[in-house]
Amino acid sequence: MSDKTKRVPAALVKGFRDFPPEEEIARRELIERIRGVFEKFGFLPLQTPALEHLTTLLGADYGSENRQQIFNFVGPEDTEIGLRFDLTASLARFVAANRELPIPFRRYQVAPVWRVDKPGPGRYREFLQFDIDIVGTSLVAADAEIIAVMAETMSCLGIERYEVRYSNRKVLNGLAEYAGISQGAAGDVFRVLDKLEKQGREAVILELGPGRVDKSGDRIAGLSLPKEQISCIERFLNIAETSHPNQLDQVSGLLSGVPVAKQGLDELREIDLFLEGMGVDRAKARVDLSVVRGLGYYTGPVFETVLLDLPEYGSVFSGGRYDHLVSRFSGQPTPGTGSSIGVDRFLAAALKLQMISPRKSFADVIVTTMDRGRMADYFGMASELRASGLRVEVFLGDTRRIPKQLQYADRLGIPVAVICGSDEFDRGEVTVKDLLAGQKQSHDVKERDEWLKAENIQVTVPRKEMISHIKSLLSRQQG
Amino acid sequence: MSDKTKRVPAALVKGFRDFPPEEEIARRELIERIRGVFEKFGFLPLQTPALEHLTTLLGADYGSENRQQIFNFVGPEDTEIGLRFDLTASLARFVAANRELPIPFRRYQVAPVWRVDKPGPGRYREFLQFDIDIVGTSLVAADAEIIAVMAETMSCLGIERYEVRYSNRKVLNGLAEYAGISQGAAGDVFRVLDKLEKQGREAVILELGPGRVDKSGDRIAGLSLPKEQISCIERFLNIAETSHPNQLDQVSGLLSGVPVAKQGLDELREIDLFLEGMGVDRAKARVDLSVVRGLGYYTGPVFETVLLDLPEYGSVFSGGRYDHLVSRFSGQPTPGTGSSIGVDRFLAAALKLQMISPRKSFADVIVTTMDRGRMADYFGMASELRASGLRVEVFLGDTRRIPKQLQYADRLGIPVAVICGSDEFDRGEVTVKDLLAGQKQSHDVKERDEWLKAENIQVTVPRKEMISHIKSLLSRQQG
Repeated sequence: MSDKTKRVPAALVKGFRDFPPEEEIARRELIERIRGVFEKFGFLPLQTPALEHLTTLLGADYGSENRQQIFNFVGPEDTEIGLRFDLTASLARFVAANRELPIPFRRYQVAPVWRVDKPGPGRYREFLQFDIDIVGTSLVAADAEIIAVMAETMSCLGIERYEVRYSNRKVLNGLAEYAGISQGAAGDVFRVLDKLEKQGREAVILELGPGRVDKSGDRIAGLSLPKEQISCIERFLNIAETSHPNQLDQVSGLLSGVPVAKQGLDELREIDLFLEGMGVDRAKARVDLSVVRGLGYYTGPVFETVLLDLPEYGSVFSGGRYDHLVSRFSGQPTPGTGSSIGVDRFLAAALKLQMISPRKSFADVIVTTMDRGRMADYFGMASELRASGLRVEVFLGDTRRIPKQLQYADRLGIPVAVICGSDEFDRGEVTVKDLLAGQKQSHDVKERDEWLKAENIQVTVPRKEMISHIKSLLSRQQG
Repeated sequence: MSDKTKRVPAALVKGFRDFPPEEEIARRELIERIRGVFEKFGFLPLQTPALEHLTTLLGADYGSENRQQIFNFVGPEDTEIGLRFDLTASLARFVAANRELPIPFRRYQVAPVWRVDKPGPGRYREFLQFDIDIVGTSLVAADAEIIAVMAETMSCLGIERYEVRYSNRKVLNGLAEYAGISQGAAGDVFRVLDKLEKQGREAVILELGPGRVDKSGDRIAGLSLPKEQISCIERFLNIAETSHPNQLDQVSGLLSGVPVAKQGLDELREIDLFLEGMGVDRAKARVDLSVVRGLGYYTGPVFETVLLDLPEYGSVFSGGRYDHLVSRFSGQPTPGTGSSIGVDRFLAAALKLQMISPRKSFADVIVTTMDRGRMADYFGMASELRASGLRVEVFLGDTRRIPKQLQYADRLGIPVAVICGSDEFDRGEVTVKDLLAGQKQSHDVKERDEWLKAENIQVTVPRKEMISHIKSLLSRQQG
C-alpha cells in the first residue's frame, strides 16, 4: 500500500462534505433538542432505507426531468433504484404497506436525503432532513398541532424572534376561482405568488403579466394573465399583505361567492382557536394569507417559519396538508399533514444566532501522561473520575511532554487537566490545572509558577481530594 | 393519481427494511446508551457522506470482486461513486485530508453502510454500524482503552454474561514463523484458524490439512499444510485453547526463538496491566490466543466480544490495531486502533437478553377528544400537562368514540388517559384512567364502573388536581 503508484486522492465526491466533531456535536445538540419537542407531542421515530424503488420515489409515470434530480442506478436483481430525495415518499410507501398501523400515525424521521443539484456555496447534494407528519386524519386540529410544534421548537431552541406563518391552499384556490383562473393554470400562478417575500410585490405582478428582467439582466417570462385577473389578485394581496386582525373577514368579503374560500377561511379561524387553546404566543404564530409554499401536493393549510433576524435563510421549518400522497400506492386517499426542517441550513442559522454554542469535545478532564511507566496509574485515575460521573480522556499521543499534551487539550477545549509525575505519585498528590484560565506570558518559570498557584490556576492537592477539587473547579468555570 | 393504471407497489427494495417506531425506539435507546459510554472516554462524533469515490472505498487497484460488494454507479460529472460499505475507509480518507487534526484523533461514528450481499433471514443490504477508533497513536495503551470501552459498553447495557477476548496478530505471525509458514500463506492459515470457535478444533485441523466435508455434504478444500506445520499449530492451540493464567508464559516458551511473538506477548502483558489499572473485571476481559479476527489489515492486538448466553450471535463488538490504513491516500503510515458494533444484530441480541425493553410510544398521557366542540380545551389541557414535564398526545383521529380512542392508546402502550365530556367540563372536573391496569371483562356497565372506581382505575378529580393525580398515577405504575 505504501507504493506511490497506488495512492489515491483523499477527496470527497463533489457536492458532499464531512461533519468534523465540532460541527457534528452542534448538529447532534440541535437534533436532540428538536427530538425532545417532537416526543413531547407524541411523535414517534420511523426509519426507512436510503435506497427505494424509483417508482416509489417518482410514481409510475415519472418524467426524465425528475429522474435527473435523483441519484439512481440499476441495482442488484436488475432493479431501478435511487437514493431518497425526501422523506415523504418513503413515509407514503410505509403507510401504504402497513395498513394495520395505529391511526393517526404520528412519526418523525431525521435522515439524510440526496439530490443531484448543482453544488455551490452552501448547496450540497446530501443534507439532513427532520420531518414530522400526522397521517390518517382529516381534522384541522392536526394542522394546528403541527403549527404549535413548529412554534414550540423555535422556543425550545431559545429563538425569540421568529414567526410561524400559515395560510390555506383552499383560500388560494378560491382566489383562482374568483379571478377566473383555470385549475390547470393555477399552479403556475401560485408558483409566482410564492416569490412574494423574496422578490416583492412589483416583481410578482410583472411575472403574472408581461414578465420582467431580473437583477442579473436575465429575462423572466411572464404568465400573460389578462388585466382583470391581475386586478383580482392585487385586490387579494392588498388585504393579504397586511397583518390586520380583520384580515380574514375582509378576504371573506372579497371571496364571498366562492365556497372553497369560505371553507379555507373557516379552517384558518379554527386553527386560530386551537392555537389560542394551546397557549401559543399569537404574535409568533399568525395567519399570513400571502404564504403559498411551492409544492404541488398541498391541499389545505400550509405553514412556514421565518427567523426575523435572518430573513435571508427563508423558511427553516415548513409544510402543509396533503390528501393524496399515499394514493400513488393504494389508490385510497389518505389525508395527512406535516412539516420539515432542513437541518443543515437551520444549524447554520442557529449557530449564527448563537442558539447553539459550538464545542470541540465532551471531555471534562484530560489525564496527562508524562511518565509512561505509570500508564496503569493514569488509567486508574481516569476510571475513578469517570465513576464519579465525569467524562475523561487519557492522553494517548506519542509525546510525553506536558506542554504538548496541554496544547492538545486546549485545541479540544477540555477545561481541566490532571498532571501527575513521580514526585506527586511519591507524595500521594496530584496537580489539577484550570485550562480555561488565561495563561500568563512569563518567561520566568518561578514567577509563573507562583502566579499559577496564587490564581488557583494550578493547584496540587492530596490524591483523595482530586475528585472534589475538580468538581468544584468545573462548577466555578461554568458559574 | 387515483387512476388504477398509475399505481405502484408499496414495496421495499430487496434486502432492505423499515424500522417502525417500536424497533426504532429500541434502536435509539441502544445507540444513546452506547454513545454515552463512548463520550465518557472522550470519543467525538464524526459524520461522513454516504457516497464516496470508488477509489476511496477500494483503493486504486480494486478488483471486480470487491466492487461487486458495493452499490456503485457512475454519478454526476461522470464520477465512479459508491455507497460506503464500512466506516473505516471514510475515516481514513478524512484523516488523510485533514492533517491539522488534533492527534490522537478519537472519533465515533454511527451510520448505515450498504453491501450487495445475498439477502436472507437476518441478512440485510443496509445496516447500521457504530465504530470507535483512536487514530495517530502507536501506544498499546490505546488498544487497552478500546478493550476497556468494549467491556464498559457491555456493563452499561446491563449485560452481565459477556467476555471481551483479545489476542495479538504478532503472536500469530510468530506462530507462522515458528511453523515455517510463509508470509504469503499465513493469511489463509489465519482465515482457517478464525473458524475455531464456530467449527471446532477437529474441523480446523482438517481444513489446514486435506480438507473436509461439512454438514450439508459440501466439500471444503484444505490448505494441504505438511504434517510438521500442523503439529506446530496444534502445539500452540493446546496452550491457546485453555484459559490457564500461565498461558502467556507457556506460549513464550513455545515461541521463544521468534522475536515478533515475544513483542506480541509483551504487548498483551502490558494490556493486562492497563486493564488492571482501570479496574476492568478481568473475568470479563481476558487474553484468548485463539482469537484471530478475519480482516487482513490488522497488525497488532485484536479484540472481540461474545455474549455468553447467545454464542450463536458470534462477536458483537470487535476490532483491532491497524497501521497502514491511511497510507492508501497519504503514503504515510498512520497507526490506529478501533472496534465496531453491528448495531442491528446487537439490538436483536439485546432485545433477546431483555437488556432493552421495547416500547411503542413515548407519550405518558393521551388526552381523548370525545367532544369535537371542545378541541381548544383539550389542547389547553395537553399544554398544561406538557408544561409540567409530561409527554402528551392529543387524540386526533376521526372517531369520537372513547372506546376506540382508548384502544388506540392501548396499542401504543400509553399508560394514562384523560377523559373529559361536557359533564366534566361543567363541573370543572376531569376523569383520569389507568390504562395499564387490567380491564374487567364485565358486560354489566354499572358493576364495571363501580369496580373501576374501587380499584382506582378510573377516577374523576377536580381539574386543578389533574397534574398531581396523573403524576402520582405514573409513579405508582412505574413503582
